[in-house]
Amino acid sequence: MNTFGTIFRLTSFGESHGAAVGGVIDGCPPGLELDMDFIQSELDRRRPGQSRITTPRKEADKVEFLSGVFENKTTGAPIGFIVRNENQQSSDYDNIKEAFRPSHADFTYQQKYGIRDYRGGGRSSARETIARVVAGAVAKLYLRRLNIDITAYTSQVGDIALENDYRIYDLSRTEDNFVRCPDPDIAEQMIKLIQEVRYQGDTIGGTITCVVKGTPAGLGEPVFGKLHAMLGSAMLSINAVKGFEYGSGFSVVARGSEVNDSFYNDNGRVNTRTNNSGGIQAGISNGQDIYFRVAFKPVSTILREQQTVDMHGNDTIIKARGRHDPCVLPRAVPIVEAMAAITLLDAYLLSKATALF
Amino acid sequence: MNTFGTIFRLTSFGESHGAAVGGVIDGCPPGLELDMDFIQSELDRRRPGQSRITTPRKEADKVEFLSGVFENKTTGAPIGFIVRNENQQSSDYDNIKEAFRPSHADFTYQQKYGIRDYRGGGRSSARETIARVVAGAVAKLYLRRLNIDITAYTSQVGDIALENDYRIYDLSRTEDNFVRCPDPDIAEQMIKLIQEVRYQGDTIGGTITCVVKGTPAGLGEPVFGKLHAMLGSAMLSINAVKGFEYGSGFSVVARGSEVNDSFYNDNGRVNTRTNNSGGIQAGISNGQDIYFRVAFKPVSTILREQQTVDMHGNDTIIKARGRHDPCVLPRAVPIVEAMAAITLLDAYLLSKATALF
Amino acid sequence: MNTFGTIFRLTSFGESHGAAVGGVIDGCPPGLELDMDFIQSELDRRRPGQSRITTPRKEADKVEFLSGVFENKTTGAPIGFIVRNENQQSSDYDNIKEAFRPSHADFTYQQKYGIRDYRGGGRSSARETIARVVAGAVAKLYLRRLNIDITAYTSQVGDIALENDYRIYDLSRTEDNFVRCPDPDIAEQMIKLIQEVRYQGDTIGGTITCVVKGTPAGLGEPVFGKLHAMLGSAMLSINAVKGFEYGSGFSVVARGSEVNDSFYNDNGRVNTRTNNSGGIQAGISNGQDIYFRVAFKPVSTILREQQTVDMHGNDTIIKARGRHDPCVLPRAVPIVEAMAAITLLDAYLLSKATALF
Amino acid sequence: MNTFGTIFRLTSFGESHGAAVGGVIDGCPPGLELDMDFIQSELDRRRPGQSRITTPRKEADKVEFLSGVFENKTTGAPIGFIVRNENQQSSDYDNIKEAFRPSHADFTYQQKYGIRDYRGGGRSSARETIARVVAGAVAKLYLRRLNIDITAYTSQVGDIALENDYRIYDLSRTEDNFVRCPDPDIAEQMIKLIQEVRYQGDTIGGTITCVVKGTPAGLGEPVFGKLHAMLGSAMLSINAVKGFEYGSGFSVVARGSEVNDSFYNDNGRVNTRTNNSGGIQAGISNGQDIYFRVAFKPVSTILREQQTVDMHGNDTIIKARGRHDPCVLPRAVPIVEAMAAITLLDAYLLSKATALF
Repeated sequence: MNTFGTIFRLTSFGESHGAAVGGVIDGCPPGLELDMDFIQSELDRRRPGQSRITTPRKEADKVEFLSGVFENKTTGAPIGFIVRNENQQSSDYDNIKEAFRPSHADFTYQQKYGIRDYRGGGRSSARETIARVVAGAVAKLYLRRLNIDITAYTSQVGDIALENDYRIYDLSRTEDNFVRCPDPDIAEQMIKLIQEVRYQGDTIGGTITCVVKGTPAGLGEPVFGKLHAMLGSAMLSINAVKGFEYGSGFSVVARGSEVNDSFYNDNGRVNTRTNNSGGIQAGISNGQDIYFRVAFKPVSTILREQQTVDMHGNDTIIKARGRHDPCVLPRAVPIVEAMAAITLLDAYLLSKATALF
Repeated sequence: MNTFGTIFRLTSFGESHGAAVGGVIDGCPPGLELDMDFIQSELDRRRPGQSRITTPRKEADKVEFLSGVFENKTTGAPIGFIVRNENQQSSDYDNIKEAFRPSHADFTYQQKYGIRDYRGGGRSSARETIARVVAGAVAKLYLRRLNIDITAYTSQVGDIALENDYRIYDLSRTEDNFVRCPDPDIAEQMIKLIQEVRYQGDTIGGTITCVVKGTPAGLGEPVFGKLHAMLGSAMLSINAVKGFEYGSGFSVVARGSEVNDSFYNDNGRVNTRTNNSGGIQAGISNGQDIYFRVAFKPVSTILREQQTVDMHGNDTIIKARGRHDPCVLPRAVPIVEAMAAITLLDAYLLSKATALF
Repeated sequence: MNTFGTIFRLTSFGESHGAAVGGVIDGCPPGLELDMDFIQSELDRRRPGQSRITTPRKEADKVEFLSGVFENKTTGAPIGFIVRNENQQSSDYDNIKEAFRPSHADFTYQQKYGIRDYRGGGRSSARETIARVVAGAVAKLYLRRLNIDITAYTSQVGDIALENDYRIYDLSRTEDNFVRCPDPDIAEQMIKLIQEVRYQGDTIGGTITCVVKGTPAGLGEPVFGKLHAMLGSAMLSINAVKGFEYGSGFSVVARGSEVNDSFYNDNGRVNTRTNNSGGIQAGISNGQDIYFRVAFKPVSTILREQQTVDMHGNDTIIKARGRHDPCVLPRAVPIVEAMAAITLLDAYLLSKATALF
Repeated sequence: MNTFGTIFRLTSFGESHGAAVGGVIDGCPPGLELDMDFIQSELDRRRPGQSRITTPRKEADKVEFLSGVFENKTTGAPIGFIVRNENQQSSDYDNIKEAFRPSHADFTYQQKYGIRDYRGGGRSSARETIARVVAGAVAKLYLRRLNIDITAYTSQVGDIALENDYRIYDLSRTEDNFVRCPDPDIAEQMIKLIQEVRYQGDTIGGTITCVVKGTPAGLGEPVFGKLHAMLGSAMLSINAVKGFEYGSGFSVVARGSEVNDSFYNDNGRVNTRTNNSGGIQAGISNGQDIYFRVAFKPVSTILREQQTVDMHGNDTIIKARGRHDPCVLPRAVPIVEAMAAITLLDAYLLSKATALF
């Protein structure tokens, strides 16, 4: 329930208004050197307040490792870590104590549990993703040794969209702008749209595309553990995600003769001429680039009056106060990468267990 | 790996050219009356050869229950079942023994396992879905007692598509035509397209929409076990599926103020005025209709020459013989329903375990 | 619940009076040659009616593999198998339909499930162990390639017991007698006792000792997955088992200075001078012989009148008819070996997943 | 691996010389009032330095809850908690950095992981049990509402043993003495023996008996999830445990006619006249008292010279310095109770999931 993975497993805990958020990474192979600066830099990428287009709430978010690391290397023991919460101004949330915010977790949590930490959305808080980013950074360090590289970027904000083919962009430029879009011109348009939306107290969604290079053939399990099913499950577990597609995805107009990826001998390596499969065939990686796209709805918290119902069933009006996050996409880019890294490492370790003699 | 679910668990086995396919259903509550006619009728819905637009391969597909049922009721013991394979004409597959069919499982299985049952795609055979349909039928019988109803239908074939809003269709008419589309006129167009594609020895993909009515609020787990993540994982585990979206999905142009679902008091029940959430908020059902859409690529087997590589790395030409399935969608409709039923029942049973005192 | 293992996983199903018992082995590495004669011979070892001291009920018990095997080798796909039940003379059980047999599953199953297949004990039937023996035989074939060898033997029947140190016996003689005891003289005494008990319509328990040679150091997980905890769980899951001890076990009189196993350099290999640890230290194999002992209670079915209660709560007298099994130990020897093999292979495959780079 | 349980799940982390030990409790039902004083008092029971017969190492061991609790009640979210380590005087361990302590985790960890936190035994440290005691205390608070009561006590130290029948003792007197033995006279003898052993720099083992009253019939799963198999796995996962038996256990001399527990109608309740089953029949609780016995070997750390091998394979002599724990039993009593509580609550919640309609 709060654990993800089969071999490389992340168990996460924490709400925005408890003492800390954190997690336990189990199944990490021993002897991996943990580059703490890299891990912290990944955390910094997801932090709010990085730019003029994200929520200005400042969070220091310094990770403290509690176990499983000795002389900077993993020992094979579970890696416990926490990030303390700050600025827990519970009074900020008094106006939502009684009313259900539309499209938030308030109503469903109340229905499911009969009790609700109304202060910050409980487990639906965006701070829950901190544990994912830490575990994802550890996974990335391992994948680096296998030359597996993961890059995500914002591919659409509202109606401003990149072309679908990721190969026409220089992905190394993704981090050059606030919105994490590799095309500088489109990025500028996206930023302009987000600012506009922000001034209106509104929010906007979009899509993130993720590209994985260097995956060896053979990762993933044929039936329920298909690699794309695991990636899809990982992505759909991120707050605000509404859809997942890989390879040709929802583009279903073309025929089999157009979509099938022909194999050819590319100087001794079996390659495909096209990659509509998105690097995964029959649930198993085929050695080509893996790519997929993730849809995010607009953030639910808006600075406008909304109709809703309170705890007693009365119709009422609610309006969030203070500042808000007009577009979650820039901060979600490192989270998408993190979940992809965890999923791929887990698939890799599992494939080792049941490999040929 | 070949097991799906946490409480209500399906373990499936079998290839098209072994003796049988089958499965084990564990965690089914005791005392459930098994309507064997219904279960067989669900199996019949997925069987090939039902109409002029599907593969004519005849399969009797009679399910035999081996355990877990006493005097027609479940006992709480695991329910083992098998469906015998027939017509295992292995000679049909001699021409693909050596070459990798494009976009099939041949190459990735060979890479992963170093051994491959070349006769029928091994675990990637469509016959693997038989176990899903049987378990799904059992789950549907349970869900019926909870008044949860699941209906899927073909919503797009190639470029012929229904409108997105399922409420404008009479879903009870879905089974009236071969393509399982609730709009008779569109259905006719779809069938015409599929026939056209078939004559060309080609294949075509599309989308299936699934609607779940009657789900109580509170199903699903907040973080990694979000109800839509489980549904997405279930759907993406079906052969040929390339994408999953629920609620507003990939329609990301609208703003938060347009997408949020306002609550109101509907004669004592908390309802939402819109349902862009697709019945799931923060990963937990909210009592509204759940709906989602699944993208299927065209079937890989086409009756045309295709370039590929053989086991020794040589470029070669391959051409499938005999008959083929031009569009998997009509047969996939009951499979989508089955996986939805399994997922919802599993979420329901899990929610019982950790419910309020 | 009906699945055992993490990587190499057995899911079992079936009751004595259904159509068949069987199982699904998932996670078996590909390319393993299945020696079908060996597998059948293991099944024959657990079969009733082998000798004058076991139940004379004849069961052919021919295993049929349904999937996961191609040209006699495992393919990496799940291995489904069944063994048909014969002689399902349900009328034999009419007298126990209404009354709870003492120390049987009747009462607890009725309490738990509210429904009960009274014909043969449902899942508590000894036939459930067939799936274990088949999976254990497959595991043994794999372990053979690692030079891991497992031998169990009857070490006590009633008050007739072998010395605790297994090294003083020639374990290759275990199969020379009906009771599977490596000491021919003690074996004769045991057989005599069992016959005596049988004539009295009574039953007798005892212990089985199991020795595993050739395990490499490093198998097992430190905390909840300790190798001996997994072995203990495996053994305690066998019908009629009441206790498990490994190494020095319940012999707790000696002091630390006497029990600690000193290391020494044995021509380049780190060895221990004693093996009170039973080959497992801190939950992880240390390369020495693993040995453990399992206690079995007397079989509950006796040919004597017993006081009990019927389904309606009335005190009543029950008496089993026909023949009975006076001592389960001889037939349990291959079951103990099978569960040990499954557990060790699972631990081995798991250790591969999280091994050093 | 570091997670225990199916529904109520404890994931533990931490070594003695990292910053903290801790855990995450997942699957705890919402609305449970956490009595923090009780939880801390349970932790205090396992703490060293409580008496003249245990290790004098002082550990404050104050638990900090980080999540999952709101206004002192569980919310259904995962409960993260930590206990900071103190007095991490790593210099104490310099003499064991190079040599493998006999019967410790040093050698097997080095073999398994190729890296080892030599400072305090890594995950084999007794501090790992802190997480168990915290989770066990939470489980006890839930079980209290079900009127399930768990009491463990020291039943043997070296050759000083209580009678096997727990019913002849007043278990409420268990906490009256340092050794946690309900018989004051035997307790005094045990304490004397432990002191004697301590003066010799040696250690002594023994057994703990655990009694569970008030368990309803129906907990446990028939095959691999038998209630006693889960209890056995839980106990065998505790450091230094070498054996587990329940009910009649290793007493295998009696015959079936003597051991079977007759049912009778006890004023409307189905009761058994004897309880050789130990409250569990066919793996499922029958409503009688559950009782079992756990064997602990002597602690491996002794203040005497021992022969061993160093990291380079050279024979050497090692001698632990400072103080040691002559007998782990008194401190293990609350750990046995904690693991029993976790196991029973998990079985209870699982039985709710698959209960009758």
